[in-house]
Amino acid sequence: MTAQLSKKGEAWSARFSEPVSDLVKRYTASVFFDKRLALFDIAGSLAHAEMLAAQQIISAEDRAEIERGMAQIKGEIQAGSFEWLLDLEDVHLNIEKRLTELVGDAGKRLHTGRSRNDQVATDIRLYVRAAIDDIVVLLNGLRAALLDLAEKNADTIMPGFTHMQVAQPITFGHHMLAYVEMFGRDVERMLDARKRVNRLPLGAAALAGTTFPIDRERVARTLGFDDVCHNSLDAVSDRDFAIEFCAAGALVMTHISRMSEELVIWMSPRVGFIDIADRFCTGSSIMPQKKNPDVPELARGKTGRVYGHVMSLLTLMKGQPLAYNKDNQEDKEPLFDTVDTLVDTLRIFADMAGGITVKPDNMRAAALQGYATATDLADYLVKKGLPFRDAHEAVARAVRACDDLRCDLAQMSLDQLRAFSDLIGDDVFAVLTLEGSVAARDHVGGTAPNQVRAAIARVRAQLAG
Amino acid sequence: MTAQLSKKGEAWSARFSEPVSDLVKRYTASVFFDKRLALFDIAGSLAHAEMLAAQQIISAEDRAEIERGMAQIKGEIQAGSFEWLLDLEDVHLNIEKRLTELVGDAGKRLHTGRSRNDQVATDIRLYVRAAIDDIVVLLNGLRAALLDLAEKNADTIMPGFTHMQVAQPITFGHHMLAYVEMFGRDVERMLDARKRVNRLPLGAAALAGTTFPIDRERVARTLGFDDVCHNSLDAVSDRDFAIEFCAAGALVMTHISRMSEELVIWMSPRVGFIDIADRFCTGSSIMPQKKNPDVPELARGKTGRVYGHVMSLLTLMKGQPLAYNKDNQEDKEPLFDTVDTLVDTLRIFADMAGGITVKPDNMRAAALQGYATATDLADYLVKKGLPFRDAHEAVARAVRACDDLRCDLAQMSLDQLRAFSDLIGDDVFAVLTLEGSVAARDHVGGTAPNQVRAAIARVRAQLAG
Amino acid sequence: MTAQLSKKGEAWSARFSEPVSDLVKRYTASVFFDKRLALFDIAGSLAHAEMLAAQQIISAEDRAEIERGMAQIKGEIQAGSFEWLLDLEDVHLNIEKRLTELVGDAGKRLHTGRSRNDQVATDIRLYVRAAIDDIVVLLNGLRAALLDLAEKNADTIMPGFTHMQVAQPITFGHHMLAYVEMFGRDVERMLDARKRVNRLPLGAAALAGTTFPIDRERVARTLGFDDVCHNSLDAVSDRDFAIEFCAAGALVMTHISRMSEELVIWMSPRVGFIDIADRFCTGSSIMPQKKNPDVPELARGKTGRVYGHVMSLLTLMKGQPLAYNKDNQEDKEPLFDTVDTLVDTLRIFADMAGGITVKPDNMRAAALQGYATATDLADYLVKKGLPFRDAHEAVARAVRACDDLRCDLAQMSLDQLRAFSDLIGDDVFAVLTLEGSVAARDHVGGTAPNQVRAAIARVRAQLAG
Amino acid sequence: MTAQLSKKGEAWSARFSEPVSDLVKRYTASVFFDKRLALFDIAGSLAHAEMLAAQQIISAEDRAEIERGMAQIKGEIQAGSFEWLLDLEDVHLNIEKRLTELVGDAGKRLHTGRSRNDQVATDIRLYVRAAIDDIVVLLNGLRAALLDLAEKNADTIMPGFTHMQVAQPITFGHHMLAYVEMFGRDVERMLDARKRVNRLPLGAAALAGTTFPIDRERVARTLGFDDVCHNSLDAVSDRDFAIEFCAAGALVMTHISRMSEELVIWMSPRVGFIDIADRFCTGSSIMPQKKNPDVPELARGKTGRVYGHVMSLLTLMKGQPLAYNKDNQEDKEPLFDTVDTLVDTLRIFADMAGGITVKPDNMRAAALQGYATATDLADYLVKKGLPFRDAHEAVARAVRACDDLRCDLAQMSLDQLRAFSDLIGDDVFAVLTLEGSVAARDHVGGTAPNQVRAAIARVRAQLAG
Repeated sequence: MTAQLSKKGEAWSARFSEPVSDLVKRYTASVFFDKRLALFDIAGSLAHAEMLAAQQIISAEDRAEIERGMAQIKGEIQAGSFEWLLDLEDVHLNIEKRLTELVGDAGKRLHTGRSRNDQVATDIRLYVRAAIDDIVVLLNGLRAALLDLAEKNADTIMPGFTHMQVAQPITFGHHMLAYVEMFGRDVERMLDARKRVNRLPLGAAALAGTTFPIDRERVARTLGFDDVCHNSLDAVSDRDFAIEFCAAGALVMTHISRMSEELVIWMSPRVGFIDIADRFCTGSSIMPQKKNPDVPELARGKTGRVYGHVMSLLTLMKGQPLAYNKDNQEDKEPLFDTVDTLVDTLRIFADMAGGITVKPDNMRAAALQGYATATDLADYLVKKGLPFRDAHEAVARAVRACDDLRCDLAQMSLDQLRAFSDLIGDDVFAVLTLEGSVAARDHVGGTAPNQVRAAIARVRAQLAG
Repeated sequence: MTAQLSKKGEAWSARFSEPVSDLVKRYTASVFFDKRLALFDIAGSLAHAEMLAAQQIISAEDRAEIERGMAQIKGEIQAGSFEWLLDLEDVHLNIEKRLTELVGDAGKRLHTGRSRNDQVATDIRLYVRAAIDDIVVLLNGLRAALLDLAEKNADTIMPGFTHMQVAQPITFGHHMLAYVEMFGRDVERMLDARKRVNRLPLGAAALAGTTFPIDRERVARTLGFDDVCHNSLDAVSDRDFAIEFCAAGALVMTHISRMSEELVIWMSPRVGFIDIADRFCTGSSIMPQKKNPDVPELARGKTGRVYGHVMSLLTLMKGQPLAYNKDNQEDKEPLFDTVDTLVDTLRIFADMAGGITVKPDNMRAAALQGYATATDLADYLVKKGLPFRDAHEAVARAVRACDDLRCDLAQMSLDQLRAFSDLIGDDVFAVLTLEGSVAARDHVGGTAPNQVRAAIARVRAQLAG
Repeated sequence: MTAQLSKKGEAWSARFSEPVSDLVKRYTASVFFDKRLALFDIAGSLAHAEMLAAQQIISAEDRAEIERGMAQIKGEIQAGSFEWLLDLEDVHLNIEKRLTELVGDAGKRLHTGRSRNDQVATDIRLYVRAAIDDIVVLLNGLRAALLDLAEKNADTIMPGFTHMQVAQPITFGHHMLAYVEMFGRDVERMLDARKRVNRLPLGAAALAGTTFPIDRERVARTLGFDDVCHNSLDAVSDRDFAIEFCAAGALVMTHISRMSEELVIWMSPRVGFIDIADRFCTGSSIMPQKKNPDVPELARGKTGRVYGHVMSLLTLMKGQPLAYNKDNQEDKEPLFDTVDTLVDTLRIFADMAGGITVKPDNMRAAALQGYATATDLADYLVKKGLPFRDAHEAVARAVRACDDLRCDLAQMSLDQLRAFSDLIGDDVFAVLTLEGSVAARDHVGGTAPNQVRAAIARVRAQLAG
Repeated sequence: MTAQLSKKGEAWSARFSEPVSDLVKRYTASVFFDKRLALFDIAGSLAHAEMLAAQQIISAEDRAEIERGMAQIKGEIQAGSFEWLLDLEDVHLNIEKRLTELVGDAGKRLHTGRSRNDQVATDIRLYVRAAIDDIVVLLNGLRAALLDLAEKNADTIMPGFTHMQVAQPITFGHHMLAYVEMFGRDVERMLDARKRVNRLPLGAAALAGTTFPIDRERVARTLGFDDVCHNSLDAVSDRDFAIEFCAAGALVMTHISRMSEELVIWMSPRVGFIDIADRFCTGSSIMPQKKNPDVPELARGKTGRVYGHVMSLLTLMKGQPLAYNKDNQEDKEPLFDTVDTLVDTLRIFADMAGGITVKPDNMRAAALQGYATATDLADYLVKKGLPFRDAHEAVARAVRACDDLRCDLAQMSLDQLRAFSDLIGDDVFAVLTLEGSVAARDHVGGTAPNQVRAAIARVRAQLAG
């Protein structure tokens, strides 16, 4: 009676007196997006069948038949010849129906001791686990590319900004390392989320467990899960892991958006700190001279997409009573799109990092534009004995004088400088150079080139480990 | 030289020294989702060409050629034979390149005095305008279906709840009218948003306007816009209308989610107020007895989707400098998905309203379960002269006594009732019936059946108008 | 028995067997934020009392007593001497209890025919209506300030950017007008939202209407409402208006964030387009030279606050069954904070607009940095007969040559230019100037100075109207 | 010259030519919310001073003076006598100014080698760390309370729902354990977030590090940080930890909202599964009979608040260029409110769990209302040899027959049952009882009472550990 599954709705047809309408079918079907889970669904079914046989719930022959059928289905899916039917609602029924076509009663026994509720939860967890593993590799790939860029520019001086005003000189290498740290935290968060993803819901069945003598730990081991979910109601209704993953993804995109913002500003001709290789840019349909940093702009825009998905999933789960409700079908598209956005963006950014040309002359010119070494002068005065607050005040007066004279602090004469504090001697000029300023910030996390190199080595060792 | 457009990137190729990589192409291309705008793009181009000819910027022959070419392209798109190329990046270049293939130089003249920046802004506005018009019809269709349901149940008594506790008796018709009001406000908001959608950006060109003697009002008239956008920078960078539309859509979904929540609770067997026709329900892969209200559950879940899109678009626009940035390409998918979600959901809900079976006996039984007429007793005492606060206190004591006696207020004897106030006479029992209570709330907006019928007539007249 | 209201919980005490715990009291009380509604609450009560008396539900004497008591309470609140008690839970019970202290039984009669459910809905609507009226004035004030700035800079040439790359020359006045348009749409949206705010829920009582012969239209007229809410269940549970208001506020903040972003970038020394008056800036605790554009940065940051409130309110209402639930108490803080953020930000921005110093030399220098007139050259060629696409291609080649020669288009000789098209004559140089380019975009919405002046006049007339 | 700090703005006054306006002062000041950080600010300053002295950057005498002054300030703050001045902008300047009043030049030396940028980042991290530690205790307290409730109801049978339809019988204890799992994951997430909170930014100074020979590891040890932040730019601009904490908080509230939703539904009279103690409920101002579950409703409403804060903080950081910008001042209020909401809600829920009265009779009655043991019958048939899909079909037909006969499966005769499958014997009736069904789900995570008790023991051991 394989015909019983040939249409969506027929899995429960005997109970129903009228068929589902076409609009309803289309509205409630998930197969056109959840077919992405197909190979995970098969892996889960195979592990389930292996356990059923080991527990003698099904026969060894049935298991062999299921494996044979699934091998063929897998081949059909990979070859693109598998026919996905809207009428069969979702990835699970599509595969189960095809299995039953291929292997008969053995196929009808596969669903023993499980439900679509725990089945889909298992599939998604397998999917997210694989996605996390990919994303961690991509994050570290981007970090490696940024380390290379940082190393080449460990001595390249640029203005450090706060409030987009020139603050203190830093090196471009040091700046790049800030992003290496951010993406490093993203790796940590992904791996922490992975711990909670990697627990097996299968065995929860519809919501209460099953009356068959199943061995959940065995299935967990087969599928590489760290543990089983310890409550069946929670197992089928929990989507925390999807939200946690997307929230971690939102932070990845936050970092991408910040880096993109800087790249776009730095490539603006008036700033001119960098150029991005042509292959990451596009032109204009009307303005023949344009070369636009499309990739970082678009990535910045895609931030909203992932933020939106976080909100979508949180809303989805708000106030949902236990256990499974159809609402949860809506968990997939935000999740899939978050994965796609992260994977594509991280890959393209790692590639783009190698296409960034630094313009050190413009950076240096900019660093000379905003009294970047004023803090060094204040520190100099402190070292001569002035309390910091008084030193800060003296330098503020000196800067104001420079403003009037339209010169930099380093361009003042010793006499002019001494008007603001008689503690100033001719050793002051070493302190007022960009190189002197940068080299002096020589402690863990500071911008001194040797600290930048040490930081690069530290992260490289970690990545190699 | 139509070949110049045969690959994405060649529109600006002479300026660039390296081609865009395949990953970049895929990352930055929009054609696979923005082709949905194709017919609006053609309509906009035709109006633009008509104006260019009227202003003698292009010749009448060129215009005729453009019209001929566009007619063919439209046919190809509608027939599904148009070949969309990733290499041509977006819907605009795909169509323009095909036009140039078909009509040569006339096609190359079409882009005179415009840019993709104002072109895409025009296309999206045409799209959103059409979507609003559809959605307004669907909202009113749902309202009409709810009016029918309300009319049939203008006298059907059910408990009105606050805090999910029985508050006062109401009629089911009155309850349905609450949703008629909500969806009515949605119509208003959609129409208000439409005013701001329906302004023409075309003529803003890239960002500053154009040097050609264009006639923007003419194009506006041709395309049915109410006005032109009055600042070219704003015209190309404004996406307010998309956000406003999605925010209005989020409120539609809020209402859908509230109605869905109620339908799901009402269909829960313990409550048992309604049944939903089988064709809107599905069963379980494991539990043979199940009949699940999938449609309202899924609709409730889809609320998150639209909320997420609002957040996505707000994030997109946050802090964007003028004028156009590539970020804005990300405006389309949230917008399209909001439209699809609303259209499908409203259509299915209008249909489902006709598939709701009301169970008046269960409703009545429930209305008798929570002292629903206690307020009527308090009002009775007020009418006899007791200040409201004192009446409230007396009735609270009576309810507590009923709780102990496990009876309803109406089941007490006159003597028992008079223990709480000697103002009570035997006219009190009329007040304590469900029918009496409902009929007494007889003012605009009240639950009295004749008010319900009057409200239905009022909205029907409005819909007919 | 006025004592009955002397503690929160005693309004319903006879029904309850144990008092509310202190933690619960604090958790559920709203008085410390909803006391902001006090004067609106009193206005609503006075209108209600007036109607009750007119309908002979209470006596004229009672009404006079209520008015006397409320006058005193209003005075106490305005003098800051009113004692707000946590024990009385909310603004309504605090005021009612004080009224009963002052006027006895008349106070206990005030609540006849209403409930806190419709009372609070009325209060909030009165509050939001007043807030909208304030915000519209402030938005128009900011627009007026921007018009002044635009007028002074109707001829000030700056580079127009797309993708932060130099696109075409525009005027600073034209750029400011983009924001005038945005804030103009904000005014429209606020006024549209006001229509839906300005409907009277009072008379819905708890959820079903009341048994007293009330006259809702009378109360609506007294309080200046346009209409009554037409369904009592909807009246007490509707918070659409709060969401719609906050969503409109989120768009205001989107515009503020975009303007802030530009101000911050423009004030960065490397860009140097503007300076912001010292009184809107702060310095650094460590770097003596810093002058930071704190106000626009903070405003940009506050965008998130209002976006968050929209999401908060949408989440609040998602899936809420009818009619009133305690969840709704959470509507107030996001609403109040949105109002405060908008009011403060708009006021400070209107003031700050007058503190912007434009640096035309830097703007002009920047406009000369990116082939801003390349489109003009393409248009020139089109006017000489070349199809636009071919003209675009020719100019792209010319720009590339300039790039190699490190010169601007206008700095090429006629011979050099003619290498790219022999249609070029010596009239080309007028086209390649910044002034020529700007003046040529002479149509509604274009950047030509006379169009900018016309647009200013148009908006001024509208504001005056 | 302590006067220099007596007004906000005077910390940098020498550079500025006009004072900050009052509106600007109020707009940009943070002291009225960031004073909550005061004790953390002092702790950070003391650790900084200790290190400065150990590194001989300041003298031992200065350090002693700073400690003396800070001890007094701490006392003043705890006594409520400290005067917070708007003019001093933030918590840091208020304390530093008071310190300088008290101890003179030593106070002015405290800011040596640091900036407010790294100072505030340190303060917030100390605050969030303490908040996490509190919240973990509260989460485990709630779990312990739920374990007690679960233990008392390990055998209490209720219907398990999917789609709000009766699915299979479960125990109330099992249901409570689902929440124990959810709040357990919340603990894990909080502790994972804590790792990233607990890194020391101090030493990053403004953004680039400092020229003084500081010892960051020493400060980290003193303050109990696990590590230092490894890049100074990142250290001052990172707010990931705040977002990650709020996102973890949003999941806590998601779980609270789900539990609240169930409590509210369960307490609805028609469902009647539980009662909540009076002290967590309130009544109505108009309906004397009402007892409303205010606490869970309000908690459900507060979910939106925390979701909104996540969105607010994500928006805040989107596209922010490095390093510190004033935008970041907006990080505090969402963070503080998230902490307050979680702390209050978790405390009140742990208390409320003890105030839940279970009504087993209603639960049992409900479990008998929806063919809850239909799956058991299908499993029975599978064990007799029928493939699962065929068994499912047979039972579906049986259920439909029961529907027509208005009886439960267990109420059919053996003959009636055998009409659907001749595999059915008289051992079937044991399978169709609620107790039999529940007991049969006897594996890890299943609803069998002994599994529930084992799960309770497991979590208790974990909590004790």
